[in-house]
Amino acid sequence: MHPRLQAIYHIHCDARSIDARAHAIAAEQSVEMPLAAIDDAFVLEEIAGRVDAITDKQGGLFEVRVSLSAETVGHDPGQLLNMLFGNTSLHRDVVLHDVELPRDMLEAFGGPRHGLAGLRRRVGARARALTCTALKPQGLPASGLAALARGFAQGGIDYIKDDHGLADQAYSPFADRLAAVTAALRSVERPDGNPACYVPSLSGDLDAMRAQIAAATAADVDTVMAAPVIMGFANFHRLVRESPAIAFIAHPTMGGAARIAPPLLIGKLFRLLGADAVVFPNHGGRFGYSPDTCRALARAALDEREGLRPCVPVPAGGMTTDRVREMLDFYGVDVMLLIGGALLEARERLVEATAAFVGEVRGYAPK
Amino acid sequence: MHPRLQAIYHIHCDARSIDARAHAIAAEQSVEMPLAAIDDAFVLEEIAGRVDAITDKQGGLFEVRVSLSAETVGHDPGQLLNMLFGNTSLHRDVVLHDVELPRDMLEAFGGPRHGLAGLRRRVGARARALTCTALKPQGLPASGLAALARGFAQGGIDYIKDDHGLADQAYSPFADRLAAVTAALRSVERPDGNPACYVPSLSGDLDAMRAQIAAATAADVDTVMAAPVIMGFANFHRLVRESPAIAFIAHPTMGGAARIAPPLLIGKLFRLLGADAVVFPNHGGRFGYSPDTCRALARAALDEREGLRPCVPVPAGGMTTDRVREMLDFYGVDVMLLIGGALLEARERLVEATAAFVGEVRGYAPK
Repeated sequence: MHPRLQAIYHIHCDARSIDARAHAIAAEQSVEMPLAAIDDAFVLEEIAGRVDAITDKQGGLFEVRVSLSAETVGHDPGQLLNMLFGNTSLHRDVVLHDVELPRDMLEAFGGPRHGLAGLRRRVGARARALTCTALKPQGLPASGLAALARGFAQGGIDYIKDDHGLADQAYSPFADRLAAVTAALRSVERPDGNPACYVPSLSGDLDAMRAQIAAATAADVDTVMAAPVIMGFANFHRLVRESPAIAFIAHPTMGGAARIAPPLLIGKLFRLLGADAVVFPNHGGRFGYSPDTCRALARAALDEREGLRPCVPVPAGGMTTDRVREMLDFYGVDVMLLIGGALLEARERLVEATAAFVGEVRGYAPK
Repeated sequence: MHPRLQAIYHIHCDARSIDARAHAIAAEQSVEMPLAAIDDAFVLEEIAGRVDAITDKQGGLFEVRVSLSAETVGHDPGQLLNMLFGNTSLHRDVVLHDVELPRDMLEAFGGPRHGLAGLRRRVGARARALTCTALKPQGLPASGLAALARGFAQGGIDYIKDDHGLADQAYSPFADRLAAVTAALRSVERPDGNPACYVPSLSGDLDAMRAQIAAATAADVDTVMAAPVIMGFANFHRLVRESPAIAFIAHPTMGGAARIAPPLLIGKLFRLLGADAVVFPNHGGRFGYSPDTCRALARAALDEREGLRPCVPVPAGGMTTDRVREMLDFYGVDVMLLIGGALLEARERLVEATAAFVGEVRGYAPK
């Protein structure tokens, strides 16, 4: 018996059609042709997708488990996505809900190289929650972003990431931003001696990103942000594997809400490919994720099953300092809290607002 | 006035909320923070997204036009997607419906280099519709796929593409498949002297795809298939630009998960990045696209406005020879018809079934 992976779909469908739908998905995601027209025994026994279970979840929703040969994926993360959901993503009534992968595929993809422990170590934190903020708005020149970074660092923040809209624009090129922000952070003396970490956002094609990582490394920056959905899973994984000293924070932009379950896409798959931390929209912010979705996502990122290092959940998207206690009660301290806009809104009191956020996180004691 | 692009969203929303939703999207897709907290005049006047129009489409659907500074995108196709739909993709009730780009951005991205004329020239066709089929199922060894290719070529087909599930799997590595299929096609004498074109499917990261293109070129193959959504827009565009002799057929796999209108994603954006042909699910097949969606998609691919070369629409997904006349009546002859599974189902009569498909296309006279 060769190793197989299991794809778990949620399908809105009537009860009479579900059996045919399930088998159609199993064929679509494997041989993509009628089984009756296939003679080859290996293809029929190993390669063709199999419907392992159909469960009525009530209310017109069915859960379908399809097993696929791990050989159809090999060690290619793009092909993993292609096999799990490729053409079936074109059906509006199907959500890719979860996936179970064989151990050797988990080991081949490898997951985080730094993870929670690595991201804590970078900023001298032991067991506490980490803090993060974002440089924005795009359109500011590098010097303007650097001035904000200086204020955040003075306020005691751990990580300062680029807003995911910052790319290599003419009004603030990556190289200028990197030089200005790192110079600003070096100019700030902090009481505990630990510098704030700048996390520049990568953009462009794979080669452009490689050049950005080389520039970051030359500037003593060891943590970057990237968007796996936009750059492609295979290219994200490639960068991770060829940059062992760099920690990666994955951003969910273009991740869509509706068609791949967020705990799977952001919690499980981004981590599998090597994300050391994953940004996602917290419940009660600007986006519509429920508390259950957020809890499941954080669990998928941190869970120590399967031998992968824990990946830090980074709830974000309109968070404020007055929610820090509630968020830490909800997520625990194995988390990085990200507040961006609300600190920037403090304007000339940005340092104090940042210090208040940082103080709330560092002073937190679990109930 | 600097050049701007327009993003057009469809939002399911109640009438009282639409104004706030529209302005929230304009901010989310640009500065990603409250405008009230921004002082910089350039950011406020140029970079912040602007709501240009809100139209009630009835039934709880609104169309919102947001203009964004072209400078936020530069010439980065990944950043284009990020700016058009990045975080807003996380809202379930928003679809990215269309986009209008300034002329210099169209010229910078460049569109197809071969297009309809180039794909006709490759197979010695003048003004007729083109024919295409697919090698599958995955799991067959290279020799098995090559035997199918030989039969398709004997039947007179123009293009023989890999099924999009064929990657670089151990049971049929890319290099073996390329060697076996091209040898099989060279062995077939065809009455008009024009060989069938093999279209291998690229997989893996950007470097792996570059190696596959180099191998294809060495084997006299000049047309390949790739999946822009899986590999990332920037990497697809990079490959297109650095491979001027190669025609690219874009496959829509994973294109359904993003809630981008298919005419925009597959017709307009894939073409913009350089796809010479675009595969999409035809109405009445295995997928749920309507005739109107298919018509709009084909028009977006072919339309000569904007100075881009025409990109060939390739309706597919469960097509059969008895639909050829209807499809040509619907699309006209500026099209490539793709029938895969239905020809394979003919088994030992594959050559005859292919010849019947090809004959139907070549013998077609418009009404």
